[in-house]
Amino acid sequence: MATPLNETCATLERSLRERVPPLLTDLYQFTMAYAYWRAGRHNEPAVFELFFRDNPFGGGFSLFAGLSDCLLFLLNFRFTSEDVEYLRSVLPVDTDPDFFTYLKGLDCSAVSISAVAEGTVVFARVPLMEVSGPLAVVQLLETSLLCLVNYSSLVCTNAARFRLAAGPERRLLEMGLRRAQGPDGGLTASRYTHIGGFDLTSNALAGHLFGIPVAGTMAHSYVTSFSSLEEVWPQILAPCGGGDPIDFMCLVKGWLGHVCQLLGAKPQGVREGELAAFLSYAIAYPRNFLPVIDSYSVGCSGLLCFCAVALALCELKYQPLGVRLDSGDLCRQSVEVRHAFRECSKRFSVPAFESFIIVGTNSVSEQSLVELSKRDNEIDVVGVGTHLVTCTSQPSLGCVYKLVEVCGRPRMKLSEDPEKSTLPGRKAIYRLLDTEGHPQMDLICLSEEPAPKVGVPLNCHPLGLDKAALSIMPAKVTSLRSDVFSYGKITLPLCSATESRVCAQSSLQALYPHHKRLQEPEPYRVAVSERVHSLVSDIKMGNSKGSNFLLSN
Amino acid sequence: MATPLNETCATLERSLRERVPPLLTDLYQFTMAYAYWRAGRHNEPAVFELFFRDNPFGGGFSLFAGLSDCLLFLLNFRFTSEDVEYLRSVLPVDTDPDFFTYLKGLDCSAVSISAVAEGTVVFARVPLMEVSGPLAVVQLLETSLLCLVNYSSLVCTNAARFRLAAGPERRLLEMGLRRAQGPDGGLTASRYTHIGGFDLTSNALAGHLFGIPVAGTMAHSYVTSFSSLEEVWPQILAPCGGGDPIDFMCLVKGWLGHVCQLLGAKPQGVREGELAAFLSYAIAYPRNFLPVIDSYSVGCSGLLCFCAVALALCELKYQPLGVRLDSGDLCRQSVEVRHAFRECSKRFSVPAFESFIIVGTNSVSEQSLVELSKRDNEIDVVGVGTHLVTCTSQPSLGCVYKLVEVCGRPRMKLSEDPEKSTLPGRKAIYRLLDTEGHPQMDLICLSEEPAPKVGVPLNCHPLGLDKAALSIMPAKVTSLRSDVFSYGKITLPLCSATESRVCAQSSLQALYPHHKRLQEPEPYRVAVSERVHSLVSDIKMGNSKGSNFLLSN
Repeated sequence: MATPLNETCATLERSLRERVPPLLTDLYQFTMAYAYWRAGRHNEPAVFELFFRDNPFGGGFSLFAGLSDCLLFLLNFRFTSEDVEYLRSVLPVDTDPDFFTYLKGLDCSAVSISAVAEGTVVFARVPLMEVSGPLAVVQLLETSLLCLVNYSSLVCTNAARFRLAAGPERRLLEMGLRRAQGPDGGLTASRYTHIGGFDLTSNALAGHLFGIPVAGTMAHSYVTSFSSLEEVWPQILAPCGGGDPIDFMCLVKGWLGHVCQLLGAKPQGVREGELAAFLSYAIAYPRNFLPVIDSYSVGCSGLLCFCAVALALCELKYQPLGVRLDSGDLCRQSVEVRHAFRECSKRFSVPAFESFIIVGTNSVSEQSLVELSKRDNEIDVVGVGTHLVTCTSQPSLGCVYKLVEVCGRPRMKLSEDPEKSTLPGRKAIYRLLDTEGHPQMDLICLSEEPAPKVGVPLNCHPLGLDKAALSIMPAKVTSLRSDVFSYGKITLPLCSATESRVCAQSSLQALYPHHKRLQEPEPYRVAVSERVHSLVSDIKMGNSKGSNFLLSN
Repeated sequence: MATPLNETCATLERSLRERVPPLLTDLYQFTMAYAYWRAGRHNEPAVFELFFRDNPFGGGFSLFAGLSDCLLFLLNFRFTSEDVEYLRSVLPVDTDPDFFTYLKGLDCSAVSISAVAEGTVVFARVPLMEVSGPLAVVQLLETSLLCLVNYSSLVCTNAARFRLAAGPERRLLEMGLRRAQGPDGGLTASRYTHIGGFDLTSNALAGHLFGIPVAGTMAHSYVTSFSSLEEVWPQILAPCGGGDPIDFMCLVKGWLGHVCQLLGAKPQGVREGELAAFLSYAIAYPRNFLPVIDSYSVGCSGLLCFCAVALALCELKYQPLGVRLDSGDLCRQSVEVRHAFRECSKRFSVPAFESFIIVGTNSVSEQSLVELSKRDNEIDVVGVGTHLVTCTSQPSLGCVYKLVEVCGRPRMKLSEDPEKSTLPGRKAIYRLLDTEGHPQMDLICLSEEPAPKVGVPLNCHPLGLDKAALSIMPAKVTSLRSDVFSYGKITLPLCSATESRVCAQSSLQALYPHHKRLQEPEPYRVAVSERVHSLVSDIKMGNSKGSNFLLSN
């Protein structure tokens, strides 16, 4: 399925190089790198893990995303002379000049990464990426990797929730560019909401770069830019199959009279500008007629104008597409609009009117989509902007990047806040499936432990407070992570957005519905092996005994 | 104050060109542009206005930001052949090929912009930018301009609120890169939170590109990467004034004993790794010692290690900087830490201990900053990440871009939702000041109206429901917008982030405190002139009479 790097990703790679220079990080990464370098520790082999502590939006799962961006970033990780000169100007004056020479020579050729596949369903506390390499280098990568994973995973998860709320059939259109955190926020949102389950985007650049299907026809400003039928030019249109152009405006005016009569509407309520706008658009794009019909009043003008123009198009053998509703009660209006379409179809014997799509776009949130799905409605495509891209109910994921091993020795952050403690040591992560193939538990083991065996019971310790040890017998065991970057080289083909979308949807499909409930889901079990559990206990014990270097000295 | 374009902005301009290609927009801008072009209307002179409908965060004001980015975007607005080929592949097949030739030749040489200065205090419903030019071109600019203004203004306003909550003295550090919407979200946040009132950023690239002061020393991972004093190398340090290096570790160990005694702490509670980390950092950066002291326990280890290392540095005539607290109750801990510093200062006669700074960074929100300001605390610098950059309480501003004039004729969107209606016609915007120089009201006039005169009463109509007409006599009148872009050229020097920050702070300073209250502010008055009011009434009247083109035909 996946496509080799050099085919799909040349543009992406170029764009990433500009967007994520290695200077795009927190200053303290450099001061720490210097301190390591100064102490001769910079090349000590170190391992960091990236994970998040809670599933977002009060949900029971997340989707992991941002991996390809991370890999392209690593591939291009190199400081320019200009970068280094800037650092020289802001680091303390007593920084040894040789450190800057060291920085100039840095790259990720000694870095390796094991990670979950892009788009996989994942859970809180599970290490999603393991980054290993020289201590100073892997430290320098922290902020950029977090920045690339945090929002991508968050917005991808948000999109998956919108998809669950919408059901599998309704098409979802992402249109959040104008409300995102600037240009790149918008581009990231388009890519990762597609992976999370959206079908279409309004973002043309995302279409170009990522191959996501794009959609869009007109805004209210187009409609209000017309005030009179005199602005319509040309007023003629040739039939679809060819032939002499006919007076399209005249045809539409005729149909408008019939439509008003059929729907019991007053012709004087029809806005001339709106009819002019629809006419003009239909003449420009007779095969793609899908106007926004609520610039003035759906019932008194927009719907009538649409039906008249659509009937005229049908008479010329074109197939109009449908309408967009952008304000008010979308459910109620969609039902009324559908009713009108059916009336037209019957009365004028135009079966095309039975298959028009109705697009709804009006500050749609997850909650309003859930409500919409419960009510009678005729909306085929839902467009979502603000609430999707800004992730209103929880605008950040809170991924962290924690040191777990240096020079082969486990490291652990002990916090007075127990949930902020980390799990020490280098790990292997297994997903245990039940007999029906549904994920049952994620198991965090030390990397040197043997993998769990199918049909062999194993003891483990679920994470979370007051969770008792338990025994589990897996029906199937999969390794959750694979090696994706090895000593400076990408070792697996990068997935396109479409490929990752397939992975996300099948990963979600396998998950039990009770874990996917949008509200109060059944928590999915994440556990550590007995050996991880013992290691944590040993380190805590060592800690409680304290160090005696001061006394012994 | 402002610097010419070619001096400060070369890097920015280059970066913008990559970040905001003209394809970064909604697809419907192209379908509309085509429909205009097809109807021969693409060159009709048109005017759009950019504004927002409500001040964010339940507040009484906003700051306008993103203007320089908009101007650089306009300057570079040009489609590449690759862009055009992509559009050809996604627009309907019946699109006239000449349209693509037209797109290839497009630029903003016929576009002009009048706008509020970057960083100015602004209010809901006031048109902040007026974009005029050929209909199809100014339509194509919509999404990109909104994308560049929306988040910049939102995060700038959020920063101003954090500044108000913190009071004028406390220093504020932005550190949200890892939680922003990807790389560019983080960069935008760093720039515009500085303009809104933050002093420092952790983002090195923002420091480089925008000249914002950068700050940062170490993370917990640095501390936990050490486990033993054997990892400290070198263990010697020369005194500040010069001279033979002395055994610094030995010196620190001596001080640690004294500190434990003074503060009544048990030496066996001290974490050897934490002491090793501090020692190593101090040896690397003896002039910039500011460690994070809560990796294990502030009272039992971090604070003791800090005091010991700092006392040793002071003995060698270095001046340590202070400490960072990153968890728990920042207020309480800062008071305890300050108390310990004072004890050390007294007991060991080290006055430097009186001037250490305490940095607090722990999920700080506007609300927690308000609470912090009310409680006893000793925090000198507050670092804010997630809640600042994601604008948690309202993650989008909702700027809109509305057509107000075509071919010299006013345009208005009439909505069934009255607050979604627009104000027709081309405008001039005045800020009326009272005798003390405080802004009193923003007045929206038609551009052909004479400006309000000082000392002459004028009648106007405040915006909002059920607002009665009123008469006001301005003591001073300023024009709120100026021409910033004229026929493809930037006509005012672009401001640096620092210059815009000065503008923002003085603009905020002039505003009455009751408008700046974070909760339940006194609404600031925005009104339309009698002529705007009449124009709206006339258009509504025309609408209610309906159009009779259908009947007359």
